[in-house]
Amino acid sequence: MKPAEYARQHQDDFLAELQEFLRIPSVSTQAEHRDDVAHAADWLKARLLEAGFPHAEVMATPGHPIVYAEWLAAGPDAPTVLIYGHYDVQPAEPLELWKTPPFEPTLAGDDLFARGASDDKGQLYVHVKAAEAFHKNSGRPPVNLKCLFEGEEEIGSPNLAPFIRQNAALLAADVALISDSHILGPDAPAIVYALRGMCYVQVEVTGPAQDLHSGSYGGAVNNPINALTRMLAQLQNESGEITIPGFHDRVRPLTEDERAKMARLPFEREQWLKEAHVTTDWGEQAYTIIERLSARPTLDINGIWGGYTEPGVKTVLPSKAYAKISMRLVPDQEPDEIAQLITDYLTAIAPPGISVKVDYLQGGYGAMVRRDSPAMRAAVSAYEAGYGVTPFFMREGGSIPVVATFQKVLGIETILMGFGLPDDNLHAPNEKVHLPNLYQGVQTAIRFMELLPSV
Amino acid sequence: MKPAEYARQHQDDFLAELQEFLRIPSVSTQAEHRDDVAHAADWLKARLLEAGFPHAEVMATPGHPIVYAEWLAAGPDAPTVLIYGHYDVQPAEPLELWKTPPFEPTLAGDDLFARGASDDKGQLYVHVKAAEAFHKNSGRPPVNLKCLFEGEEEIGSPNLAPFIRQNAALLAADVALISDSHILGPDAPAIVYALRGMCYVQVEVTGPAQDLHSGSYGGAVNNPINALTRMLAQLQNESGEITIPGFHDRVRPLTEDERAKMARLPFEREQWLKEAHVTTDWGEQAYTIIERLSARPTLDINGIWGGYTEPGVKTVLPSKAYAKISMRLVPDQEPDEIAQLITDYLTAIAPPGISVKVDYLQGGYGAMVRRDSPAMRAAVSAYEAGYGVTPFFMREGGSIPVVATFQKVLGIETILMGFGLPDDNLHAPNEKVHLPNLYQGVQTAIRFMELLPSV
Repeated sequence: MKPAEYARQHQDDFLAELQEFLRIPSVSTQAEHRDDVAHAADWLKARLLEAGFPHAEVMATPGHPIVYAEWLAAGPDAPTVLIYGHYDVQPAEPLELWKTPPFEPTLAGDDLFARGASDDKGQLYVHVKAAEAFHKNSGRPPVNLKCLFEGEEEIGSPNLAPFIRQNAALLAADVALISDSHILGPDAPAIVYALRGMCYVQVEVTGPAQDLHSGSYGGAVNNPINALTRMLAQLQNESGEITIPGFHDRVRPLTEDERAKMARLPFEREQWLKEAHVTTDWGEQAYTIIERLSARPTLDINGIWGGYTEPGVKTVLPSKAYAKISMRLVPDQEPDEIAQLITDYLTAIAPPGISVKVDYLQGGYGAMVRRDSPAMRAAVSAYEAGYGVTPFFMREGGSIPVVATFQKVLGIETILMGFGLPDDNLHAPNEKVHLPNLYQGVQTAIRFMELLPSV
Repeated sequence: MKPAEYARQHQDDFLAELQEFLRIPSVSTQAEHRDDVAHAADWLKARLLEAGFPHAEVMATPGHPIVYAEWLAAGPDAPTVLIYGHYDVQPAEPLELWKTPPFEPTLAGDDLFARGASDDKGQLYVHVKAAEAFHKNSGRPPVNLKCLFEGEEEIGSPNLAPFIRQNAALLAADVALISDSHILGPDAPAIVYALRGMCYVQVEVTGPAQDLHSGSYGGAVNNPINALTRMLAQLQNESGEITIPGFHDRVRPLTEDERAKMARLPFEREQWLKEAHVTTDWGEQAYTIIERLSARPTLDINGIWGGYTEPGVKTVLPSKAYAKISMRLVPDQEPDEIAQLITDYLTAIAPPGISVKVDYLQGGYGAMVRRDSPAMRAAVSAYEAGYGVTPFFMREGGSIPVVATFQKVLGIETILMGFGLPDDNLHAPNEKVHLPNLYQGVQTAIRFMELLPSV
């Protein structure tokens, strides 16, 4: 029996094991889930050994551990593939908006609902099952495999780049493979060739040194919430264009060729509005929705708080107000430089009586990979085998900063072989994965490994 | 022994009883304190009976109860004084900023620290002790007394005006007396002749129907937090002038005479900055700080929230964002009309893809009383007796909507005989009261009752 056939016959095992994986609430952001994150790492290591990897280990970092595995039986002449994924997940809050419990995976038709089902446990697990299919049949994969599965992606991978730099020899490979992105539809596979970077900051503004009664001091004391809203409103105009001075200086312009190709991507505005749960699109009018979503920088306030936020009324003029802001960056913006620009600008526009502190919480580079490399040709053929159609090339709005790290530290390019769908509700309530995509994903991954040695 | 002398000799009893009163966490806003509010009402009724009132009762309302007491022994020819106060207090949050526990009254020199020490338990209790001083000596006060002590002032007195309308005969009086304001300094008594009104709304803006991943949808979906900050920034300009269309239409202009008198009020900018815990003042440059604080309308965002507000990062594009906004109004602004104006304006400026809902949580009229009435002359003389100096006339920035209700329903004016200080930290951590002011307050209240029959 061929590996592809084995995988087809063992889809139920895939589902059962994935459900076990998804039951572990490995939320890396929340301290109360620290043990769950460690448990997920141990679970994953055990599964890698069962899937045939001769070596798998949980490697400590200053934060959550990294699961490393290798299977080098293909020999020194065969190419080596470095598979990256992350076993940590986003917080599930707000819990009241989930229709089923986030850590009790629930089947509804072909969809499996759970936090992490698509981002990224489900997609990561495709590669464990692909390797196992070789193990149970031909005995070994036709390429050398190294796995690098981290537990800190959702907190910005603070220890990943140092780990890669310190273990560059261990991780040496010919190409990296990541399944942490989405395709265009169940029958429209796509390969991502560009990712956005990220700069995430937290802003604290301070007015009076302590909370005051707004009836006694309002009108003569600058209220930090009022001031914060005025300051934030100056970061972007109504059309979504970011107005931080210098912000666009390094933005690599979209080429006419790229814009033309993007215009030919399948895109149904009505369907997209439905997936986005909105009645209208919004944003920079000079760019199409696809361009805004993947090839333009953005600025989103991800959280804001200050003053009295409980039921009822309280006439407080608070001492402080806060906001969390993420900016998605495009090549060739520098995250550290953007953090400095927004810090300088907010400081400059802080009105009298208001002080501002900006904490740079997370940064990551965007990336763009070649669409004409041998590995990319193998990936295109593999998708054709898995899905029966030629994949599109597309840019991705999200961030996978490790792609830039692989380029810079290991000198290798990455194949972004995604199996998610645009409506998987990533980072939102009711995250799900479309199971047929994962099953076809295993076929695609198997075919990629089979094709890679000969391209 | 005269009542004044009796009160002087029993200041320790005043302090001990007030501390007992302050230990009851009668926070009307918070449901978990419902029993404490009821307990405070019962405690107050018992103390009124002990102080000599022949009749005191706890009267139910749809919300927290009203404590009513009367002592009509002065006879039908003597004037009747209706004393109003409130026995509920603001929430104590944020608890971590209190230097001593908010409901364990703590003495530091002449100051007593506790939630409600100044607003309004301490000031209310002045009148209980003044009545008791007559009871223990001459036997009865020289005026008829009615007490109306409510437990919902800090939630906007939703049941007070209906109660007054339903019990207009019971509450009939010649003048109302309220101690719920501050004087200018320990040796600078003042009588408030104008109060601001209030309009308090809660704003909910909705973008997408559910939370989204900002990396997947940011840039093409209008983020409700971004939108809310832009909308709020349009309510007021940088100098504090409110820019809601129609907002100023009914504002009664300050007369030149009033402005001249306000300019002569004792005011030390440096001292005020210290009390406000700020390094600079702010606000409408065409008006002095005193005018901005008491005679101009204001707009303060008292709370704002939306998205992810826990430690760490989450790249959520939330479905909703919220703000609580209070506007202080001046005569002759109409609170209901202002609520409609801000609702209409926010609805009009809501950008595409953003819906807005405005809940009108609380409203109250401002008020202005005569400075030349007989009762006011008695109050001036009483302060002179209590403090040894003539009180100033001033306007107050806070709101006591019952003053307008007394005018409209009972046809009587109110004497605002305050004993607080500007730095009492009302509605803020570390609320306190300056005890000598309360002791002089009892003297002033006694003298007012003695003088009133003859003016």
